[in-house]
Amino acid sequence: MAGSQLILHTLMCNVQPVDGSRRGEFEAEMNRKVKPLGSLGQLESLAIDLALMSGRTGVINHAELFLFAADHGVAQTGVSIAPQAVTAMMVEQFTRGTAAINSVCTTTNTPLNIIDAGLLNTVNHVSVIDTAVARGTQNFQHEPAMSEAVALSSILAGFKLIEHHISKGCDCVLLGEMGIGNTTSAAAIMAALTSFYTSECVGHGTGVSDEVVELKVELISKALLRIDDISDPLQVLQEVGGLEIAQMVGAMLASASLKTPVVIDGFICSAAALLAVTIEPNVRGYLIFAHLSDERGHEKMLSELHAKPLLKLGMKLGEGTGAALAVPLIRSAAACLAHMGTLEQVGLA
Amino acid sequence: MAGSQLILHTLMCNVQPVDGSRRGEFEAEMNRKVKPLGSLGQLESLAIDLALMSGRTGVINHAELFLFAADHGVAQTGVSIAPQAVTAMMVEQFTRGTAAINSVCTTTNTPLNIIDAGLLNTVNHVSVIDTAVARGTQNFQHEPAMSEAVALSSILAGFKLIEHHISKGCDCVLLGEMGIGNTTSAAAIMAALTSFYTSECVGHGTGVSDEVVELKVELISKALLRIDDISDPLQVLQEVGGLEIAQMVGAMLASASLKTPVVIDGFICSAAALLAVTIEPNVRGYLIFAHLSDERGHEKMLSELHAKPLLKLGMKLGEGTGAALAVPLIRSAAACLAHMGTLEQVGLA
Repeated sequence: MAGSQLILHTLMCNVQPVDGSRRGEFEAEMNRKVKPLGSLGQLESLAIDLALMSGRTGVINHAELFLFAADHGVAQTGVSIAPQAVTAMMVEQFTRGTAAINSVCTTTNTPLNIIDAGLLNTVNHVSVIDTAVARGTQNFQHEPAMSEAVALSSILAGFKLIEHHISKGCDCVLLGEMGIGNTTSAAAIMAALTSFYTSECVGHGTGVSDEVVELKVELISKALLRIDDISDPLQVLQEVGGLEIAQMVGAMLASASLKTPVVIDGFICSAAALLAVTIEPNVRGYLIFAHLSDERGHEKMLSELHAKPLLKLGMKLGEGTGAALAVPLIRSAAACLAHMGTLEQVGLA
Repeated sequence: MAGSQLILHTLMCNVQPVDGSRRGEFEAEMNRKVKPLGSLGQLESLAIDLALMSGRTGVINHAELFLFAADHGVAQTGVSIAPQAVTAMMVEQFTRGTAAINSVCTTTNTPLNIIDAGLLNTVNHVSVIDTAVARGTQNFQHEPAMSEAVALSSILAGFKLIEHHISKGCDCVLLGEMGIGNTTSAAAIMAALTSFYTSECVGHGTGVSDEVVELKVELISKALLRIDDISDPLQVLQEVGGLEIAQMVGAMLASASLKTPVVIDGFICSAAALLAVTIEPNVRGYLIFAHLSDERGHEKMLSELHAKPLLKLGMKLGEGTGAALAVPLIRSAAACLAHMGTLEQVGLA
């Protein structure tokens, strides 16, 4: 284990902070473009953020979605309207092209990578990438969701997967997730790492009743009492996290290390972002928040992360649907800064 | 003229109302999809609206942007920070691929049609479609912007252009505009056709001072006094409208006649929508509002049109940039309803 922790520490050390000293330079470049000052609104700040991440202006040609799926022991407590088997069933839909994310990826020309980050039973299909370190988590109502070894190895697995894809040309990492029970896990992470009341972190997920919401609040409150140091992200991940959440933490560390933008989807991805940023604050500079989810705690979680989401469509599906829908905005922002002519070129400087 | 008006009347009569009686059927179809109920948020109502327009579910394969450019006599009064010559200069940028809309169209795979709807001097370039009926409007500070004949012929020109493109396969019409001075024209149309005060309709456009905003309010107020019947959209168009606005009205009538969705960009496109809906209320059912512009009057104008925009990015550029950025959302919404599997197919009905 000391070895794993050492590797993780080394990985974190590779995350360089975004070089904010260049902001003025990129802002000036945007202001020279042939358009009224500020008229592209949030797209302008997005384009500048993207340039700061990579240290240069340029287009995004190879955005890819990474959809991490895993099972959650806590699903056995009845925290979701769907039975646990639906996680694998949805992964099958992803392989068949019949889920929402398939439609969104097709229409936005975004390659979809389906990742088994810890399904109870893997789905045998050529398009499923198996990076699972364990087969589902334990039920955190009763015991830690995973061991320290599993948590660290899962982070490492996510890291290596994304490192590989970036080395092959991926220039924008979109994250998505699937896992029955994972809004409960995400709410628990939020309750642990922020100052919000647990009841502010827990929502209706896929559509549970008010009674189940109360059950989730109680269950989370009790589980958090087990944690020695509630500000330690690795302890929180172990106790109440998920295997897909752990791999997404690794994915963010890898993207940030390689100065590549990471697009965060909804509530569960944002909980993973909270973990990643607590582990290594410099990760924050590489994150783009795709949308405000309709899940109750998301707005407060985004405020904690100082994030201004691109889309607000009342969605709460997960699967990376928000991230994939935001990618045309991200590509457009980068393209405007890279390709637009200047006022000087047309004699209007 | 009687002939032109007769033709226009005939065109209007072809706009069939959207068949709202089928809403429940399409809603039920959406609710059968393999996802939690309502989890696609605004994308679900959008998909249902699209299905109601064409009377069937199906994907959008050939969205095209139509960017109507024209000059405005009122620009001579100094209502914009840019000189009138910038209209043609921006059209040149569109042909060279150096404007913001070129970057957005490229990244969203949206063909761009550049239309000379009434430039003072046409831009000689193979990609400019010249449908102009007149070369710029008169300055509506002093006289009507255009004659009744020019207004009607411009509507007809926009109608024919879009009718032709739809007959060639275009299945989603995106509108955009360019014309120095046209926020003043749009504000005047809004002031005439809604109950808002003129000062609520007038904004800073491309970035004019508060003094110029006051000048615009006064100029518009005086011009509207010339109009006999301020509720008559054709009189309003003639007195304070623009040639690109007239052609966009025709474009909306054509799209609605042919049961094809029309995507409205920002403040100026919305003013054209206000005219089109006043001419023929059944047009409304075929309109999709892309974004909330940062131009002052836009939020109120959208409320008048009972429109909930898809994007809110603080943009105020025009050129159809908001419409083109919204098209991936529209394509995705349609694709989800057309292609997703059902709960029944996976045994979760």
